[in-house]
Amino acid sequence: MTSPFLPPPRMLMGPGPIDADPRVLRAMSGQLIGQFDPQMTACMDQTMALYRQVFCTANQWTFLIDSTSRGAIEASLVSLLEPGDTVLVPSFGRFGHLLTEIASRCGAEVEAIHVPWGSVFDPQQIADAIRTVRPKVVAIVQGDTSTTMLQPLEDIGKICRDAGVLLYCDATASIGGNPLHTDEWQLDVVTVGLQKCLCGPSGSAPITIGERAVEVIEARRHVEAGIRAEYHVNGQGPRIASNYFDLAMIMDYWGPERLNHHTEATSMLYGSLECARILIEEGLDAAISRHALNGQALAEGLLAMNLKLYGTQANRMHNVVGVYIPEGVTGDAVRHSMLHDYGIEIGTAFGPLDGVIWRIGTMGYNARPDAVLKTLACLEQCLLSEKHALTSGAGAAAAKSIYASAAQ
Amino acid sequence: MTSPFLPPPRMLMGPGPIDADPRVLRAMSGQLIGQFDPQMTACMDQTMALYRQVFCTANQWTFLIDSTSRGAIEASLVSLLEPGDTVLVPSFGRFGHLLTEIASRCGAEVEAIHVPWGSVFDPQQIADAIRTVRPKVVAIVQGDTSTTMLQPLEDIGKICRDAGVLLYCDATASIGGNPLHTDEWQLDVVTVGLQKCLCGPSGSAPITIGERAVEVIEARRHVEAGIRAEYHVNGQGPRIASNYFDLAMIMDYWGPERLNHHTEATSMLYGSLECARILIEEGLDAAISRHALNGQALAEGLLAMNLKLYGTQANRMHNVVGVYIPEGVTGDAVRHSMLHDYGIEIGTAFGPLDGVIWRIGTMGYNARPDAVLKTLACLEQCLLSEKHALTSGAGAAAAKSIYASAAQ
Repeated sequence: MTSPFLPPPRMLMGPGPIDADPRVLRAMSGQLIGQFDPQMTACMDQTMALYRQVFCTANQWTFLIDSTSRGAIEASLVSLLEPGDTVLVPSFGRFGHLLTEIASRCGAEVEAIHVPWGSVFDPQQIADAIRTVRPKVVAIVQGDTSTTMLQPLEDIGKICRDAGVLLYCDATASIGGNPLHTDEWQLDVVTVGLQKCLCGPSGSAPITIGERAVEVIEARRHVEAGIRAEYHVNGQGPRIASNYFDLAMIMDYWGPERLNHHTEATSMLYGSLECARILIEEGLDAAISRHALNGQALAEGLLAMNLKLYGTQANRMHNVVGVYIPEGVTGDAVRHSMLHDYGIEIGTAFGPLDGVIWRIGTMGYNARPDAVLKTLACLEQCLLSEKHALTSGAGAAAAKSIYASAAQ
Repeated sequence: MTSPFLPPPRMLMGPGPIDADPRVLRAMSGQLIGQFDPQMTACMDQTMALYRQVFCTANQWTFLIDSTSRGAIEASLVSLLEPGDTVLVPSFGRFGHLLTEIASRCGAEVEAIHVPWGSVFDPQQIADAIRTVRPKVVAIVQGDTSTTMLQPLEDIGKICRDAGVLLYCDATASIGGNPLHTDEWQLDVVTVGLQKCLCGPSGSAPITIGERAVEVIEARRHVEAGIRAEYHVNGQGPRIASNYFDLAMIMDYWGPERLNHHTEATSMLYGSLECARILIEEGLDAAISRHALNGQALAEGLLAMNLKLYGTQANRMHNVVGVYIPEGVTGDAVRHSMLHDYGIEIGTAFGPLDGVIWRIGTMGYNARPDAVLKTLACLEQCLLSEKHALTSGAGAAAAKSIYASAAQ
């Protein structure tokens, strides 16, 4: 017989996924209950209420998609976009490419605009593009782990609102570690995942949908034939091309009618609920400050080890740092030694940055001083093995001094 | 602060989901590891190997879709069917409707044929329909929980093969509790879920894909722009309309190239692996016999309680029994008392059977004599409260005599 799979001891300090909070894993070990058990539906309602707090929204339609974060992007775009609709994608990294890819598979006309990797958009660039392109939807990533950049969104919602354009945002990598104000910033649809700052595993994707987007989605509601009742009236718009990602039907499933759709991924629901509880218990502001502090300590530690950081630091996400692989050092050898000698995973990079930078994260459960200091200590050993010039102890000392200042 | 969600004590004896095997929940509590950690990829390879045994196949492409079982249906149909293709759906219940629904959202021309609920197709009916409809794909459910019926598939694969038609099968409700021979029966694509006889939670969907289907899918491969390398050659066929459910890309992710796609739902992977280990450890034949025995004991017990069974019993799945709600008994009152007084969930029914039958399951972890006997004992109490005429003790006695005969 095959032996059970026993995960090896690792500390995940890459761009995500990261170690799950043990509380989340414990919550997921709860026994299943029936899909329409009143305690199940109460659990779903509690999850909706908690994620409203996580997303800083009053949106009724705040729930989970039973897929990874990528699936929630697709659910949003396939439900909003009809074939032939135009979508504007301001892209500043690999996950901007992904939005382009998914939107074009929905049959939309995609107009992408770009800034060099390592930077973000000025809101005016987006306003100008909206004027030229006249899209139905603007789709943008908040934090793109491929470049570590965080796109400021404060002004973009208003720009879209004024232009009568819907704004979709993928905040998977940023939520919980950086501010995200769905209602205040006028974001129409936001989707995320659990595997970054929310301390959980991939496999469930929280979403929030504002009123303007709900109208568009409801106009396309076509209740599945197998469960349609006489009183169900279909929308006038064309049917959504996906059944699984049909947000109108998923809303009917999470809403008071509890119309049968998928069989809820109950263990992932338990986990998602616990992720939200952990974050709300700590407080959104406290969690963001914790990510800012640990991210800064990590960055200062790396600089003190004679390393150079990637991208405009003022626009960096709190939770992940890009760092250039120094001259003469083999990036993969360092990552290999970090993983196999020290049990710590740091990240490689995509596309043009592959072999150029490492990406080191400190997020969620691993946004902790001990995790940062361990990572710096072990990285120092690996860099010394590779003959990188550095002052021993300087990295950890720089990080500790950041923690010391913050404690005052 | 909100309190943690603590699932109430329940025993799930409906049509699924059912109680997860505690071994599966324990496996899922393992800590996460990185997506390209060699131990992660080894875990994925081990999962593929075990599910080949579960599906009775040598198909290389046997892996998991990160969604509920419904998502794997969509992944199969959207990857096989191009807009305008014809698909034949022999439908004998609610999940036949679902295949129709999903296929038509793929833009396919759907021709559905029907038999009355409670019966199944004669293979000749399908052969005749293929001759008339000339479909590219036949899509069929093996076990439809809405009617409890199991469609014999032994001959249908050959019929499809001879006609040059691809055969897709949704075996979510049947696998592990009823025979399923992917290769011997010439099934081209089969998808399932964990939440029935496989003893796990919903949220991961095993799939197996044979060579003929792989060819169709590979002709439509279009590697995502964000990760395409120069040596990737796109297929000549039209791009698959979904990114998340693009089987060509998901094969590249599970295959030796390990091309980035979604972030694997690691906890669900651990759970899926353990589900397969449990089944293979018991042995497929032993597990099927166990389901047959417990299903028979349940059915005989119900008959002995002066109840009438639904549908052609010779074609019933081993793992779920439909039983008429007797005259003068309020179906919902019994289900309510079963759940709230006795902590046992039994199932209601869909569409034309709503209020007409209950569906009682004995599957996966709950295909056990104690679970069957507890259910019969408590149901007797509920029926007595509703003044249904029965002989006290007859139900449990009938079930026990089945167990006694089997033990001889």
